[in-house]
Amino acid sequence: MPAVETQFETFREDAPIRLRDGGELPEVTLAFETWGTLNADGSNAILLFHALSGSHHACGENPAIPAIGELWQPDLHNGWWNDIIGPGKALDTDKYFVICVNYLGGCYGTTGPASLNPATGKPYGSSFPHVTAADQVEVQAKLLDRLGISQLHAAVGPSVGGLLALTFATRFPERVRNVISIAAGYKTTVLNRLILFEQILAIENDPHFNGGDYYDSDSPSYGLALARMISHKTFVHVDAFEQRARRDVKQAKDSLAWYRVRDQFQSYMLHQGKKFTKRFDANTYLRIIDLWSKFNGANEGDAETPQELFSRCKEAGQKWLVFSIDSDFCFYPEEQAELVGHLSEAGVEPMHITVHSDKGHDSFLLEPDFYTPHIAWLLGQ
Amino acid sequence: MPAVETQFETFREDAPIRLRDGGELPEVTLAFETWGTLNADGSNAILLFHALSGSHHACGENPAIPAIGELWQPDLHNGWWNDIIGPGKALDTDKYFVICVNYLGGCYGTTGPASLNPATGKPYGSSFPHVTAADQVEVQAKLLDRLGISQLHAAVGPSVGGLLALTFATRFPERVRNVISIAAGYKTTVLNRLILFEQILAIENDPHFNGGDYYDSDSPSYGLALARMISHKTFVHVDAFEQRARRDVKQAKDSLAWYRVRDQFQSYMLHQGKKFTKRFDANTYLRIIDLWSKFNGANEGDAETPQELFSRCKEAGQKWLVFSIDSDFCFYPEEQAELVGHLSEAGVEPMHITVHSDKGHDSFLLEPDFYTPHIAWLLGQ
Repeated sequence: MPAVETQFETFREDAPIRLRDGGELPEVTLAFETWGTLNADGSNAILLFHALSGSHHACGENPAIPAIGELWQPDLHNGWWNDIIGPGKALDTDKYFVICVNYLGGCYGTTGPASLNPATGKPYGSSFPHVTAADQVEVQAKLLDRLGISQLHAAVGPSVGGLLALTFATRFPERVRNVISIAAGYKTTVLNRLILFEQILAIENDPHFNGGDYYDSDSPSYGLALARMISHKTFVHVDAFEQRARRDVKQAKDSLAWYRVRDQFQSYMLHQGKKFTKRFDANTYLRIIDLWSKFNGANEGDAETPQELFSRCKEAGQKWLVFSIDSDFCFYPEEQAELVGHLSEAGVEPMHITVHSDKGHDSFLLEPDFYTPHIAWLLGQ
Repeated sequence: MPAVETQFETFREDAPIRLRDGGELPEVTLAFETWGTLNADGSNAILLFHALSGSHHACGENPAIPAIGELWQPDLHNGWWNDIIGPGKALDTDKYFVICVNYLGGCYGTTGPASLNPATGKPYGSSFPHVTAADQVEVQAKLLDRLGISQLHAAVGPSVGGLLALTFATRFPERVRNVISIAAGYKTTVLNRLILFEQILAIENDPHFNGGDYYDSDSPSYGLALARMISHKTFVHVDAFEQRARRDVKQAKDSLAWYRVRDQFQSYMLHQGKKFTKRFDANTYLRIIDLWSKFNGANEGDAETPQELFSRCKEAGQKWLVFSIDSDFCFYPEEQAELVGHLSEAGVEPMHITVHSDKGHDSFLLEPDFYTPHIAWLLGQ
């Protein structure tokens, strides 16, 4: 894999940067990576949005991000969408200039709760504000301005990234020609919100959480591990999970205070949860979970109704491609059906493809062939 | 509703009472209630097993249980199966003598983690042993001996109670004529075990848990609330949940350290979780969750295979009635299908009824008419 380095841009010209939930930040640094070459008129850019616990490092080999230290664990060094991005691939870097940005509130280089507040010289911690999908795309739009990109060839996002792609495309309809939303939705369901809330409580209940001010002591790793376990079960289809757990049994030494872990599935899941705490910050997790939990397309786009929202896409002549995964129980197929319904009512005529997979939500990471032909076709239109 | 009092029987003649996981207890007191009258030859008894967070108080009005104090909250005073137990009802107290026993490890009068250990004069707490379904039915069989009941007319159980009814019927096949298992199964699934494990971690991660020794200080109420929330979402169908949450909005004052609860469903669920902590002990919850998590019918019955296990039921001439609820996602219909398959292979020929409900797992508590005709028919055969 070719080497790639994280780039940084800092924004403080409109300081303080005001966020929709009332918070503000004196400055924002965005960490991002790019692949391919921007053409002379800046018309071949694709903006990719990453998933909840993903990063901006979607392609290539990146062994280190400045100032991130041990959180940049070895299993992150290879890009998470290597099979989709590259010469001749779905996001073809011979043709397109692909950009992916770490989210505001993130822990991989973009300003987040662990960053130093210039006003105090200490990490933001609990004082880092709540962020929304609208905030995320507003700051990414500033980055596009600085890069000289007035209109994207496409906004693309899997999972939570699909919510962001939707938000960018509806807040800046004239800046996007094509939109690709993979295993995402239009607004959170009750079940989403309950499962996300369980994860919030899991972290908040950890004895080390301290409201989010834990950077000079132990971090809330058991709470974060439990949160990850709760979500992980929705990413992987139960049958696939059984197979994985059989291959990868980590028994014993997992004893908690009272409970004896004797079950290979519980042990495997605990291992997944603990592993996650080495590479992610609990405060970042809370920010993105919160963003997701309150997500509603019309709200993020300042529209009264879905029809008002998506009529902007119709007027701008956007093309939409929506993927469902039949075995997904993180973003259920009903959620994409709702999105497609709203788009259709607004006259957008989205293309809606369901892939049949036994991998569950994770299919978008594992089965590139299921997605590549339609993505390449849409981008080449 | 007629008044009923909790009765107590203490067993110390075979002391110490050894449990299958290696623990032991110097004595065991069982708390139980009975309805109807035992006939002269002791042949009309029905043993009912309660659900995970239920109690032995299944019928009538019981305003207080000695020594239980505030944990016996007002919403428990009415029996949880008033619509099923009584004169002319499914478990007809004009004909049958119905018994229900609080589980070993319980918090409503049976010896449990909050009970005083006679050896130390202090609550057992963390030293209270792990218990299994087999342990539960062994001690309940001793109670039947003392009551002069050699054979039950029926063993009946909904939810986790169904696992116990199965265990009683297979460990003591000659002591049971009829078995009724409602929305239960034969062994835990991977999904069960993951969801149960999340609940265990939620409690263990609570800063007040202290390994289970918390009776002289704050109890791990946030952890227990989170555990209850995780399970509650599997008891109630999502559509029904939406309706309940709309009726019963408890907004505001639910702020946690960092997160602002603004969503009525999250608020409703948090309210449910907090309410539960007033009426249940976290250590008891862990014991029953653990029992459930490791449940496998053959193991509990000391059989090599399901066929060996259920051939005992066939030889004893037992009749089985198994209920599924089509909208259940606590014990999925596939789980009852597995049980029915094993029974059929052993030649038992169970009757298997699926009720169509929009209430989810809770249907067995809410819709007595769905169950009464078949229960009455089987018992009257």
